[in-house]
Amino acid sequence: MKFKIDVELNYQIEADSTLILNIHALKTAKQKIISESFESTLPLHVEEFTSLQGEHRSVRLAIPKTKNITITYKAEVENYYVLKDCTHVPELKIDQLNPEIFLYLYPSRYCPSDKLYNFTNNLFGHIVSDFSKVIAITEWIYKNIKYRGGASNSQTSALETLTEQVGVCRDFAHLGITFCRALTIPARYFTGYAYQLKPQDFHACFEAFINGSWIIFDATRLAPLNGMIKIASGRDAADSAFGNLFGEINYKSSKIACDFMGDNFIPFHQHQQGNQAISYS
Amino acid sequence: MKFKIDVELNYQIEADSTLILNIHALKTAKQKIISESFESTLPLHVEEFTSLQGEHRSVRLAIPKTKNITITYKAEVENYYVLKDCTHVPELKIDQLNPEIFLYLYPSRYCPSDKLYNFTNNLFGHIVSDFSKVIAITEWIYKNIKYRGGASNSQTSALETLTEQVGVCRDFAHLGITFCRALTIPARYFTGYAYQLKPQDFHACFEAFINGSWIIFDATRLAPLNGMIKIASGRDAADSAFGNLFGEINYKSSKIACDFMGDNFIPFHQHQQGNQAISYS
Amino acid sequence: MKFKIDVELNYQIEADSTLILNIHALKTAKQKIISESFESTLPLHVEEFTSLQGEHRSVRLAIPKTKNITITYKAEVENYYVLKDCTHVPELKIDQLNPEIFLYLYPSRYCPSDKLYNFTNNLFGHIVSDFSKVIAITEWIYKNIKYRGGASNSQTSALETLTEQVGVCRDFAHLGITFCRALTIPARYFTGYAYQLKPQDFHACFEAFINGSWIIFDATRLAPLNGMIKIASGRDAADSAFGNLFGEINYKSSKIACDFMGDNFIPFHQHQQGNQAISYS
Amino acid sequence: MKFKIDVELNYQIEADSTLILNIHALKTAKQKIISESFESTLPLHVEEFTSLQGEHRSVRLAIPKTKNITITYKAEVENYYVLKDCTHVPELKIDQLNPEIFLYLYPSRYCPSDKLYNFTNNLFGHIVSDFSKVIAITEWIYKNIKYRGGASNSQTSALETLTEQVGVCRDFAHLGITFCRALTIPARYFTGYAYQLKPQDFHACFEAFINGSWIIFDATRLAPLNGMIKIASGRDAADSAFGNLFGEINYKSSKIACDFMGDNFIPFHQHQQGNQAISYS
Repeated sequence: MKFKIDVELNYQIEADSTLILNIHALKTAKQKIISESFESTLPLHVEEFTSLQGEHRSVRLAIPKTKNITITYKAEVENYYVLKDCTHVPELKIDQLNPEIFLYLYPSRYCPSDKLYNFTNNLFGHIVSDFSKVIAITEWIYKNIKYRGGASNSQTSALETLTEQVGVCRDFAHLGITFCRALTIPARYFTGYAYQLKPQDFHACFEAFINGSWIIFDATRLAPLNGMIKIASGRDAADSAFGNLFGEINYKSSKIACDFMGDNFIPFHQHQQGNQAISYS
Repeated sequence: MKFKIDVELNYQIEADSTLILNIHALKTAKQKIISESFESTLPLHVEEFTSLQGEHRSVRLAIPKTKNITITYKAEVENYYVLKDCTHVPELKIDQLNPEIFLYLYPSRYCPSDKLYNFTNNLFGHIVSDFSKVIAITEWIYKNIKYRGGASNSQTSALETLTEQVGVCRDFAHLGITFCRALTIPARYFTGYAYQLKPQDFHACFEAFINGSWIIFDATRLAPLNGMIKIASGRDAADSAFGNLFGEINYKSSKIACDFMGDNFIPFHQHQQGNQAISYS
Repeated sequence: MKFKIDVELNYQIEADSTLILNIHALKTAKQKIISESFESTLPLHVEEFTSLQGEHRSVRLAIPKTKNITITYKAEVENYYVLKDCTHVPELKIDQLNPEIFLYLYPSRYCPSDKLYNFTNNLFGHIVSDFSKVIAITEWIYKNIKYRGGASNSQTSALETLTEQVGVCRDFAHLGITFCRALTIPARYFTGYAYQLKPQDFHACFEAFINGSWIIFDATRLAPLNGMIKIASGRDAADSAFGNLFGEINYKSSKIACDFMGDNFIPFHQHQQGNQAISYS
Repeated sequence: MKFKIDVELNYQIEADSTLILNIHALKTAKQKIISESFESTLPLHVEEFTSLQGEHRSVRLAIPKTKNITITYKAEVENYYVLKDCTHVPELKIDQLNPEIFLYLYPSRYCPSDKLYNFTNNLFGHIVSDFSKVIAITEWIYKNIKYRGGASNSQTSALETLTEQVGVCRDFAHLGITFCRALTIPARYFTGYAYQLKPQDFHACFEAFINGSWIIFDATRLAPLNGMIKIASGRDAADSAFGNLFGEINYKSSKIACDFMGDNFIPFHQHQQGNQAISYS
């Protein structure tokens, strides 16, 4: 399916600064960039690099002292997803797990799974399959955590989200990841563009490693799972922030659009799909 | 009912120190001290004082540098409790609440109810009466929190007890109080001697203010509610510690015994009693 | 010295609510109310009560569902303070301390002194007298914590203020209290009206118990210490909030004025006064 | 320089389990394995893998239900270090930093540098060069944090170490890393064997990225910096634990020895070396 991405970011700069952006659609076997452009209102040296394991494409911009800068990113992206039937999924075998995935079992800055081991196992430990566990996790989060813009900040971890029961997409994702890891299910942060997300913005959800595939889950239920354009995956938002700012540079505003370029989009929402699930990898 | 209390406390002292003990059985309209003695292996100046609102009787001991000291407290205490039928209890009316009780609605060191407002209301807010809410709270704690000696320390608040789901009687009480306050039910910490507690030790549980009375609850279910001898009540363990040590004095060990002096003790356990409840005040 | 207080508070009410206000100037041996009035735009049943130990005068208002309510409090207050020379102050003797003051040695919701025992003693433990310790504490806070409106919220404890190093008057007071208690110096929260505070608002600072008197300290340095009209003292802001709201009532705005009614006000700022200090009790 | 490593680890196993060990000396351009052996008291399938960026060599062991297992690792390792003169080091240029190093600027589970940004910059921000900053950091930690075995646990982050001012080598390292990152100096966790460490054990310290090299620092001062055999580097202990246990397997005990195989070891302690520093990479 083809999607059209349109991003405008505005920053104010007080002194020479460096900006690292993770806003490019990722290039993967399942996600092709048909065309893309990256421009700014100032002539800048733009350096692109991809992480060793391909989790993100970053650009680094050295920005001289100036008043304001507007950055635009436009792309046409084609993505494919695989529909997985998770009716009978075998348990994760730690002794056969790809070593590169262990990372996603360990606690991280915003996902302190070590602190919620008992809590999580009391709540979900009795559920039989890994898939059913993650389904139960996303349902629990959806029912208990209230979505409210501005309710959290850049220091909010899954622990606060759990106890205060309010947050934004980033917090919903962190809590989902934390619960998964506490159950010994590898889980990672997923950032991207989401078709039909209202209001349009960057989005975050998570992937759990089930039966050898990364399956996507979104406890916010704010966008269909089959309209996601992946920007990055990582341990949590510490790895995968849209922008990392060094120097005296401040984020001002953004406009984001993600449109479907076909005729007939049939939204896939996990909670309506039983044991069918979506993998982008 | 009459109970016999026998306490022995051992401390090691490295330098001149001051010890404040809250181990005396409280004198209330419902609890009479038939006899008591307080002794130590050293001749000490013992000063007793009762707090303004009668929440505790403390003794202060100025202890010179010495090697070890053993303190013994023996008492025969008669207590009376009132059985309350909580089938139909009206809601708390804040505009008629005795002002001295407001204190027990506010967050305290170990009971940060402000941090768990949403969590608690999501879990228990739908339950109709205050009594049923507290019954549900004690049941939830009993089922979810594991009792394990040494699992917590003097810094553990109800927040950690909730997320780590393990603790001792003090932690069970703090979590119960925190949940109550988050539901606008006044609640306070209760320390005392508990008949049939195994192993014998100081005990802690909590009281909630329901329909004009302080009703006792114990989420540990470790001792019958009608065999409690009250030492103190307070906001939480910061108010009501058994011992406060100033100087170079260390707690070494203790022996505690609480025996029934009658023939026929019929234990009252809340979870077996429906809407019957016990008040000591 | 005489001061004139003028307060206007605006609330929005969605349903029958109860409001408890701690905005009345306290009546003490050192603070006399010459005249005062308390009015609202609705006829309300106003109930006043004073806490047992006289730490605050509260009013309770039962407010029917209405759109908006404006409450005004006006007072003329005469206060006296004692100038104390703290050049040679003996150490606190725990074994002679008035039992009612012990409360202010223990940790509380916003002042978890137990968690900062080592930190505080490393920083200030070597300083010789209690007065010099508290002077060093207020200076450290003034130099390290940045005052910034909106930087904290109702959950912020002294621990966050210490690590994030930003806050408002309430946070400065909580951190000061916490440091004092960790050094075994009794300390309590002080709220009041402050002459020459800019912008005019309710103010908070703290009192430390030194050589038998409660000495006032203000690490914000935002107002002279001799222009304070006391509203309440307490363990921390959990005890002494200006307003406690029950029901569907929201704070909208306030206007506060505190004016001097004499000719010649000579401001007293602790950091310019050497060993002279002010006590209001 | 040549060192001889001798490790014995004992585990108790209650059910089929998986053990991941990070105890092998790393193979790098500066560290050569002359010989090594890895054995266990049970015949096990041992799988070795190295992370993509070479931060650690792990072995994975599938252990059947048995009573006890003893694992031994012996190695002779030759390591080289480079002495760096840090008298004049230019500041880190974010716009020229190798992208793979950005990871070490971001907060992680045990190193929440985002929470200590103000604290750290207030304390060290005024110091001119990156090297001098890290020297000041290690000195501050050495002077303020007390080393005490058992004072922390697997949940302790740098935030608690800072406020409680007590910990073990792991905590000292986490705090050093956190301070560095809050100053925009990349820093990573270093685990290894340390010659002359008393008592002999696994050791942890940290590396900061200064002038293009990873420089080693150890705020514990418990072992010379030139007697370190590297096992792993990572963001923090979540990445680089010696053992990750899955299933019903418990750590029982260990014996560790690290001996020098030459004649003349001249210990290098940073605090005695002025601007000379050691890099192992």
